[in-house]
Amino acid sequence: MTGRLEIFGVKGIGEITRGTDLATVIAGAVELRPSDVVVVTQKIVSKAEGRLVPIDDSDPSERLALILEESVRVVRRRGELVISETRHGFICANAGVDLSNVDSGWAALLPDDPDRSARRIRDGLGARLGVDVGVVVSDTFGRPWRRGVTDVAIGCAGIAGVVDLRGTHDDRGRVLQATEVCVADEIAAAAELVMGKAGGIPVAVVRGVDPSWLRPGSVAEEIVRPPAEDLFR
Amino acid sequence: MTGRLEIFGVKGIGEITRGTDLATVIAGAVELRPSDVVVVTQKIVSKAEGRLVPIDDSDPSERLALILEESVRVVRRRGELVISETRHGFICANAGVDLSNVDSGWAALLPDDPDRSARRIRDGLGARLGVDVGVVVSDTFGRPWRRGVTDVAIGCAGIAGVVDLRGTHDDRGRVLQATEVCVADEIAAAAELVMGKAGGIPVAVVRGVDPSWLRPGSVAEEIVRPPAEDLFR
Repeated sequence: MTGRLEIFGVKGIGEITRGTDLATVIAGAVELRPSDVVVVTQKIVSKAEGRLVPIDDSDPSERLALILEESVRVVRRRGELVISETRHGFICANAGVDLSNVDSGWAALLPDDPDRSARRIRDGLGARLGVDVGVVVSDTFGRPWRRGVTDVAIGCAGIAGVVDLRGTHDDRGRVLQATEVCVADEIAAAAELVMGKAGGIPVAVVRGVDPSWLRPGSVAEEIVRPPAEDLFR
Repeated sequence: MTGRLEIFGVKGIGEITRGTDLATVIAGAVELRPSDVVVVTQKIVSKAEGRLVPIDDSDPSERLALILEESVRVVRRRGELVISETRHGFICANAGVDLSNVDSGWAALLPDDPDRSARRIRDGLGARLGVDVGVVVSDTFGRPWRRGVTDVAIGCAGIAGVVDLRGTHDDRGRVLQATEVCVADEIAAAAELVMGKAGGIPVAVVRGVDPSWLRPGSVAEEIVRPPAEDLFR
């Protein structure tokens, strides 16, 4: 950890449509420094990647069919609320299918491979600005047992998913147990605090993270818990 | 939301023992401004409140007995790992019983009423510094389906637990669905990024949160999901 973080939303991102190069847009909107982490919401990544499908949003059965198509398994269901597992291994409401902040008649699906999405943005920022940054693609998930949604990482590049502090010592010299910290999720949550939900600020910068966290990272490989070690599948 | 947050760890907190007045210690270590949110780790709150019990930590059965004593229900168990529900309604590993960053031969239990703990610190800071701040008591929890721990709020005062954005509109004028954001958890997660796990920095300040979030808050009332609406009990 470091002593101080600065987190700010990036204004002026404008409308994102299929084919928009997000790195170009972000590079034009903010001055980045080495070791900054850029957090980009899933919504604009999905739009840029053309992950929009037409939907009659007055018809709940059409919405449900789409959710089931995006799911590999339904985990829980109550009325219109479906908690399911996506192909990526995320367990979330509605398989990540989202009707907010998209035009009426359309639904946004999750990116095919959000780690790859993050890598593309990171590579593009490196090429355009000559800086080495981390990128987190964030989405808003609920969770069991606790009310309210929080933002989590669905993809990352150039920034660790999980930082393993096992084997380091606490302030008594005792070896720490169970201290694999999911810094990518904490960075996504922190960024949400300056983004809000109304859709105006889809990009934020987290400046000042521990430089040792800036390494190749992957949500799929580091954060998604394999079924065999999961007590809740 | 606002445009910019600053997050920094508070140095010089020193050793906390039973009866330490945390507000006095914090007030002596950092200059606070109105609307700052002070995040305090459970560990020092438990120490100040004398929530330490002697334990033979070479004896796993003694540790297990203590965990079960602190639980109202075991949710999952695999070997030495116990996920249980505490009296507070938290579902977490080992009922929050923690052996790290305490002297050998002792275990730290969760505060009796972490919202009350937060209120006391907040009231004390108000009395000593004349500033109105929010206080979050944080702890480190695992979660289903995702690897790595993150910090969450177990108590809060003067800052919202959950901010309800339902009924506000997205950037298409459509009413937003499912947008109760758990800002207290996001603030706890953000603070962890400057604290690390080694125990040296048990207090952090989050400066710049949306002023409308600074209102009486409660983890117990706002964040702990009542069993009737919980799909995962």
